[in-house]
Amino acid sequence: MEGALKGIRVIDLSHILAGPTATMILADLGAEAIHVEPPQGDDAREYGPFVGKVDKDHSAYFISLNRNKKSMVLNLRHQKGKDILRELIKVSDVVVENYRPGTMRNIGFDWEEIQRLNPKTIYASISGFGHDTLPQYSNRPFYDVAAQAYSGLMSLTGPEQGPPCRVGASMGDIIAGQQAAIGILAALFYRTITGRGQRYDGSMVDGLFFTLENAVVRYTTEGEIPKALGTAHPVIAPFQAFPTRDSEIVIGIGGDKLWAHFCTVVGRRDLTDDARFRTNPLRAKNREILVGILTQEIIKKTAKQWTNIFEKEGIPYSPVNNIKQICEDPHIQFRNMLVEIEQMGIGRMKIAGSPFRLSETPGRVCHGAPSLGEHTEEILTTVLKMPQSEILSLRNEGVIN
Amino acid sequence: MEGALKGIRVIDLSHILAGPTATMILADLGAEAIHVEPPQGDDAREYGPFVGKVDKDHSAYFISLNRNKKSMVLNLRHQKGKDILRELIKVSDVVVENYRPGTMRNIGFDWEEIQRLNPKTIYASISGFGHDTLPQYSNRPFYDVAAQAYSGLMSLTGPEQGPPCRVGASMGDIIAGQQAAIGILAALFYRTITGRGQRYDGSMVDGLFFTLENAVVRYTTEGEIPKALGTAHPVIAPFQAFPTRDSEIVIGIGGDKLWAHFCTVVGRRDLTDDARFRTNPLRAKNREILVGILTQEIIKKTAKQWTNIFEKEGIPYSPVNNIKQICEDPHIQFRNMLVEIEQMGIGRMKIAGSPFRLSETPGRVCHGAPSLGEHTEEILTTVLKMPQSEILSLRNEGVIN
Repeated sequence: MEGALKGIRVIDLSHILAGPTATMILADLGAEAIHVEPPQGDDAREYGPFVGKVDKDHSAYFISLNRNKKSMVLNLRHQKGKDILRELIKVSDVVVENYRPGTMRNIGFDWEEIQRLNPKTIYASISGFGHDTLPQYSNRPFYDVAAQAYSGLMSLTGPEQGPPCRVGASMGDIIAGQQAAIGILAALFYRTITGRGQRYDGSMVDGLFFTLENAVVRYTTEGEIPKALGTAHPVIAPFQAFPTRDSEIVIGIGGDKLWAHFCTVVGRRDLTDDARFRTNPLRAKNREILVGILTQEIIKKTAKQWTNIFEKEGIPYSPVNNIKQICEDPHIQFRNMLVEIEQMGIGRMKIAGSPFRLSETPGRVCHGAPSLGEHTEEILTTVLKMPQSEILSLRNEGVIN
Repeated sequence: MEGALKGIRVIDLSHILAGPTATMILADLGAEAIHVEPPQGDDAREYGPFVGKVDKDHSAYFISLNRNKKSMVLNLRHQKGKDILRELIKVSDVVVENYRPGTMRNIGFDWEEIQRLNPKTIYASISGFGHDTLPQYSNRPFYDVAAQAYSGLMSLTGPEQGPPCRVGASMGDIIAGQQAAIGILAALFYRTITGRGQRYDGSMVDGLFFTLENAVVRYTTEGEIPKALGTAHPVIAPFQAFPTRDSEIVIGIGGDKLWAHFCTVVGRRDLTDDARFRTNPLRAKNREILVGILTQEIIKKTAKQWTNIFEKEGIPYSPVNNIKQICEDPHIQFRNMLVEIEQMGIGRMKIAGSPFRLSETPGRVCHGAPSLGEHTEEILTTVLKMPQSEILSLRNEGVIN
């Protein structure tokens, strides 16, 4: 089996998380992703946890995001570094970067120049607000936590009447990274028809705004400003965590048929006929009363007891797993979602696998992450056919590592 | 301008959120998405908020997810309904569904049958755990809140030492929907080379597990079970919300150079030389002490005062916007991320726009969502060339609406 993107070369000028997420997806799908790093390396190499020692090649944070990629060091402040990047763009399909807007232009690689070098290039940028917006936004430095706060997502996340909370994963970066992968793949498909590349201008704020679904329409149609609700859902009920006799359990009841069955299962068949709870809109409206009643029932048994009952009766439920529990879960093992890699200088370690389960071209983790500049020479030699003497002189001049 | 997926026909058998998110993305990118609904309609039509009246065609929840699509009613319990679906699959490119595994097989449309009907078909399913997993998982009914709890994401989200919280948007569905769009697009690209379709087997749990990034490696490399941290980040600091004199403001400082500048900006240049905070790993390790010190500085000024300072100095920051604030934001307006549609029977309303900003083939919202069965007759007539008399008899038999 080969990857869907076999033969596609990606120049990955990105750093930390949003851009590297996009290129990780492309690499999982079989593209050759060349992570072009400055001499000091991608900033993510400074983030923990570190395995063995605090060192640029030992950051598990970096490793988990850069599996399947190659690393090449190129000093883009040096004229010869720029020349090499120009040559690489000429023989590549995709360029990805998540610098602050303006940076690529300043180093001589704006969209016009990239297009001039190779009209087939798909050039994707990801930034806080995007390149094409009002100048007071496009220039702003931005990180995930700021995107979560700016987009409104943080205001929806947290305990009811409690402080707003950050989602415990970097959704600002990851949503934008997935969307960039979507834009790049759509552009690759379109290129098979037209032969031309194009530009993708991603925004972390837009990306998260797109995910707010019913919160946006609740505001635009009803004028209501949605708020955080703990584990509950604003328009579906019951759909949240309940305390059992020992730990918490999440229950999600969508339709009315399931609701009737659920009432019987928890021994409150009478609720089926209760006019306050007859339809989902009514249950959502009377959520507080409903949750009060159901809590009295759910707390009577342990999580284990409810699990057995809900399994047998087909009630959608879940324990609230911690990271240890999910990592040890038989399903995660079966689907190879926690995959062991052989990481140079470290040995075996486990990272999250690829969720792109295609029958012919499944997303795969083929190898670990590159050490800083591991493939510099290989790429110069094989992709750009550069003689050894030239590589040596570039190294002496500090253009490569 | 046309869409990247112009000419691609998608049969959307999905409901509520994960599947419809995937097909919304494909429709934004120009595909013809035919939402095939049962006679009673997609369950999402029962979810609020409702505009004007509580009715299947007035759910803003449904409308916001089904813009750009067509709706066709087909009774798949009826033999003739199955026959029509077979004919549609023969002339389509993509089939998407998010039924509980087993349902498609029960109604006669498993992967083998779809492939037999049309070997070029890309068939994407999304479910809680996926089809290809241990049977005790694949059969489980599952919703977003359960996926957030099961995957471990909920255990990472919420106040420090407080209760776990659900992300205030349906990330279990949306992440899986975006990943399915990625899988479908990769398969469409690959099909241009091989001519063959393939199957995508998505899982909401796997999808979220993939987003947990450093939480997974913190557990696998250090044995630490990561916990929720309010607005803070586990391995980057300072990277969280701080109270100002009036409201909260989020600050995100990644690298050491920015840290040094930030210290000067908040009037604590001395902290640059403080050994406890010299590098990011040290700042993350000593986060509690660091946050205590910085809070004393940030609280001295109002959010507005800090905004002016941080803007001028290039410090990554953000207010914690609520949904009203982000909907009214000039950037969101400029990027057309809150787009007005003309919705039949409702009039003008605003929904989230498309984040797929491609220069040649931008994602677009061309029209509102379909009323239930709005395009049944159109599709039978134009796609399947069915004579009027046959349509009439199908209607009399309850196969269509």
